[in-house]
Amino acid sequence: MTETRRIRFTVQYDGGAFWGWQLQPGQRTVQGELERAAGRLFDAPVRVAGSGRTDRGVHALGQVAALPAPPRWTPATFRRSMNALLPPDVWIADAGEAPAGFDPRRHPVRRDYRYRVGTGAGSASPFLRRWCWPLGRPLDAPAMQRAADVLPGEHSFRGFAKAGQEHRGDRCTVLLARWEPWDEAGLEFRISANRFLHHMVRYLVGTLVHVGLGVRPEADVAALLAGAPALKTSPPAPPQGLFLAAVHYPEP
Amino acid sequence: MTETRRIRFTVQYDGGAFWGWQLQPGQRTVQGELERAAGRLFDAPVRVAGSGRTDRGVHALGQVAALPAPPRWTPATFRRSMNALLPPDVWIADAGEAPAGFDPRRHPVRRDYRYRVGTGAGSASPFLRRWCWPLGRPLDAPAMQRAADVLPGEHSFRGFAKAGQEHRGDRCTVLLARWEPWDEAGLEFRISANRFLHHMVRYLVGTLVHVGLGVRPEADVAALLAGAPALKTSPPAPPQGLFLAAVHYPEP
Repeated sequence: MTETRRIRFTVQYDGGAFWGWQLQPGQRTVQGELERAAGRLFDAPVRVAGSGRTDRGVHALGQVAALPAPPRWTPATFRRSMNALLPPDVWIADAGEAPAGFDPRRHPVRRDYRYRVGTGAGSASPFLRRWCWPLGRPLDAPAMQRAADVLPGEHSFRGFAKAGQEHRGDRCTVLLARWEPWDEAGLEFRISANRFLHHMVRYLVGTLVHVGLGVRPEADVAALLAGAPALKTSPPAPPQGLFLAAVHYPEP
Repeated sequence: MTETRRIRFTVQYDGGAFWGWQLQPGQRTVQGELERAAGRLFDAPVRVAGSGRTDRGVHALGQVAALPAPPRWTPATFRRSMNALLPPDVWIADAGEAPAGFDPRRHPVRRDYRYRVGTGAGSASPFLRRWCWPLGRPLDAPAMQRAADVLPGEHSFRGFAKAGQEHRGDRCTVLLARWEPWDEAGLEFRISANRFLHHMVRYLVGTLVHVGLGVRPEADVAALLAGAPALKTSPPAPPQGLFLAAVHYPEP
């Protein structure tokens, strides 16, 4: 018995007009658009597997997915034909043969997210507002970085997740958590980890931005991470500032 | 008799979903959206004057406009209230009192346009394609710059305009014509002049890109400018790469 041959690909999407990644009946989703285009290409129903869900309104610069494909479709012709069929807000950036047994959801070693916060008045501009949190107020970036400095390492992130939905535990190993300038428009939070809990980046950014506004003390982040009872995160940052930047797999 | 008091403002728009700037019955236009919002604000019909039309699909980072406004609306409250009423693809960046007799259309001393060409494969990405010409091929930038070097100065630009529609003559004084890197995505053409003919920037860019692709010789630009008969421009570059960047008026 031979395993079905699969194509692995990197997909970008502007999440603004999607009900998230995952297929949902009656809603426009990224997985749904990819399966529809691939189904037309192969003239047969096809299931697309992604590295993980993204929420409604969240964008991707480097989501990774895979699907079984008939041998006559090379990765290059698959990519070109899919891009001709896909709507303008989804785009396949590259495609290749998937290694044997490749499972985009189970095998990532690291996921990178970016979150953009617009601090200038101009962040409400039509060219920025759909891809950032258009805060329009200055932030204390050094205080936000000091608060974020407690994140790297392995911790329970239960304090920064939507309650009651993690079947695989709440421990994540954060590899990077850094605030950087985002052109002249604001700040970008870069965070990498082996895995993320549901809404985790948005809760982290919501809380760190409150630190940057002086609304809550820097030490709250460490206290939330330590599981301080009675302490709550700030509201999650809005989805349109969040980008799944890349998903990394072990070298074959 | 006193002149009606007017507010002058700078407006940004993502042209993708507009039938251009100018009011047209039955079409969605930027002027139409501004007049509708201001009409609701003032509870009376109002006419908005812009510095000039932009074509269907063309964007603006700094279109300038003016309108008569009741004295109770300060520029700051006008701007805030308009931005609350306007759709997300139009945004007023600043507003102030218009000097006496200010006419945004008749008085500009200089208009700045930018045109973005995506040269990398990634220019078809959902985050770039709507705001550039997603060419996806390398360009010979030095050749394009050499060809553009003949543009500054006063010339007839009839060879680079849609025929038969210029009532005010075809002479323009170009102050700047420069190709610059556009991040890592491609090239940006910056051109400034006292005035522009209809479609002029798009004809110039279409022709210069053909030079950059090696499809036609550099010398064609000078020959077109000199009015060589039998010589035609290349097709106009697509509208979604073009931005009206700024409009300048004499210091009061």
